[in-house]
Amino acid sequence: MPQTASQNRSIRLASRPHGAPVPDNFRLETAAVPTPGEGQLLLRTVYLSLDPYMRGRMSAGPSYAAPVEVGDVMCGGTVCRVAASRHPDYREGDWVLAYTGWQDYALSDGQGLQKLAPDMAHPSHALGILGMPGFTAYMGLLDIGQPQPGETLVVAAATGPVGGTVGQIGKLKGCRVVGIAGGAEKCRHAVETLGFDACIDHHRDDLKDALAEACPQGIDVYFENVGGKVFDAVLPLLNTRARIPVCGMIAQYNRTGLPDGPDRLPLLLETILRKRMRMQGFIISLDYGHRYREFHRDMSGWYAEGRIKYREQIVEGLENAPEAFIGLLEGRNFGKLVVQVGARD
Amino acid sequence: MPQTASQNRSIRLASRPHGAPVPDNFRLETAAVPTPGEGQLLLRTVYLSLDPYMRGRMSAGPSYAAPVEVGDVMCGGTVCRVAASRHPDYREGDWVLAYTGWQDYALSDGQGLQKLAPDMAHPSHALGILGMPGFTAYMGLLDIGQPQPGETLVVAAATGPVGGTVGQIGKLKGCRVVGIAGGAEKCRHAVETLGFDACIDHHRDDLKDALAEACPQGIDVYFENVGGKVFDAVLPLLNTRARIPVCGMIAQYNRTGLPDGPDRLPLLLETILRKRMRMQGFIISLDYGHRYREFHRDMSGWYAEGRIKYREQIVEGLENAPEAFIGLLEGRNFGKLVVQVGARD
Repeated sequence: MPQTASQNRSIRLASRPHGAPVPDNFRLETAAVPTPGEGQLLLRTVYLSLDPYMRGRMSAGPSYAAPVEVGDVMCGGTVCRVAASRHPDYREGDWVLAYTGWQDYALSDGQGLQKLAPDMAHPSHALGILGMPGFTAYMGLLDIGQPQPGETLVVAAATGPVGGTVGQIGKLKGCRVVGIAGGAEKCRHAVETLGFDACIDHHRDDLKDALAEACPQGIDVYFENVGGKVFDAVLPLLNTRARIPVCGMIAQYNRTGLPDGPDRLPLLLETILRKRMRMQGFIISLDYGHRYREFHRDMSGWYAEGRIKYREQIVEGLENAPEAFIGLLEGRNFGKLVVQVGARD
Repeated sequence: MPQTASQNRSIRLASRPHGAPVPDNFRLETAAVPTPGEGQLLLRTVYLSLDPYMRGRMSAGPSYAAPVEVGDVMCGGTVCRVAASRHPDYREGDWVLAYTGWQDYALSDGQGLQKLAPDMAHPSHALGILGMPGFTAYMGLLDIGQPQPGETLVVAAATGPVGGTVGQIGKLKGCRVVGIAGGAEKCRHAVETLGFDACIDHHRDDLKDALAEACPQGIDVYFENVGGKVFDAVLPLLNTRARIPVCGMIAQYNRTGLPDGPDRLPLLLETILRKRMRMQGFIISLDYGHRYREFHRDMSGWYAEGRIKYREQIVEGLENAPEAFIGLLEGRNFGKLVVQVGARD
């Protein structure tokens, strides 16, 4: 069921998940394509980004952003083309980065849009290496993690758009970089293509021992994007004055209650004190919007020079977004997950 | 049994405590007063500081500093007079800040000593408001906590030398300051003498509710020096971008194992992310030694102007140090605990 010029398909939150999302939590709806009024433009989605943070928006609990209401279109970053414009700053055919969610078409008054260069070889990169995930990796590692040459950096989801970029920037800064990923193929990719010094399969029963072996000098920077058992393996290896940027916790998003005891909260507090560590949570859009240009300049340069590599997994068709998103939370993707919602031209 | 000119009493670690220290973990020994060699000086202890961190040194586990070995003199900061000198920089009668531990006399080659002004009205203040505890309060709050006018600051051990100073600096910086202390008398002191906006008795069964009521705008800075149930009450009240300097955890020092579950470590990680919080551990001597002059200038001024108040509890006699220290860990002191080991003159 491809994108058409007359109908607007949207995927909406049908019900809130309890634990891991299931297909029934989503619902496909169809309506007429809306018509832009004066000062508005009509956006046609070409690429939709799927990201772990969306799991948080499906729940009603308190978060840094309002949840998606039941019945509303699922939220998400998109790369769109302007299909029709009654806005002075936009012309039909322009590429824009938007936040129009899981649907074919949306109206906009121009607020919050970012124009993309008309000649981008890969417009979808604005959702990944040159967008939110790349920016998250760059600021979290450099501003909070502050890696120094010779230090050991550990990052999980090592072939994802955040983890893979964190590790490669760490190599540019002279660190020993140890990744954690799900499966032998991803681990090979992290080492052979992305240049990590080592990568450990998190399915291994001896994860803690394997990580300790890969980090003979301990861990100076742990970029936290998964939580769960990876954090447990990292904790005893942290060095004095370790830094932990906290940008996500994909392993915990589907949790419905606290795990059984003992209660290790006091242990974490003591470790922070004893090792004089710094842990800091951040949300890229809220904390670092003012530093986007600096990121874009560096990352564009590194990518053009081949110093940073980037892998995408493109899923065809909006209707496949729920299944792809469920797989993302299970680690079934390999690289940045993007849905091709419509044709480029 | 007072200090004499001929005998050196010392209190040594007799055995490592399991949980809370007991008198049998300490042993009093007596030996001849040592004689300084060429380039050495003999120090006579006048004041000995008792501080919660000493509990950590009694255990063998890994920490930021080596433990006291069984049989060795208990460590501790002291204010001493030079009893005899064969060192060119020191004369008999000089006051010095030293780290000679729980004993009457010690030899020194001058390393690590800090000369005190000969006319100090209160030489013991070099162990408190103008020393390690005051410095800890100052740097932890200002450098890590970064309090802003109108923000809410919470600190426990509110009448102790760290907590009391943190709260008063917070008031100087325009914060709403809420203290937590053990008992009605201490709470009254925090409000009426130190100028806190509110102070809550941690013995209350409804600690969480009482703290929430005292912090209607949430908590922006929590200066962590106790851990345990106070942290539990603080956690749900933390605001977005809260800062938590972590300098101690007296409520947890006697812990022998982890508390029963559920495991709240994932909850803390999620809170750090969701609220974009910063937690940072520090050890004043290791992290901030280079900023001592700045602290000393500000704090001396504030104290002289009466803008910072300071309360000491002086215990007479070295032989009473173990009992006083055990009481400190139970919160039985009221103000900075100092042992008067010998006469001033």
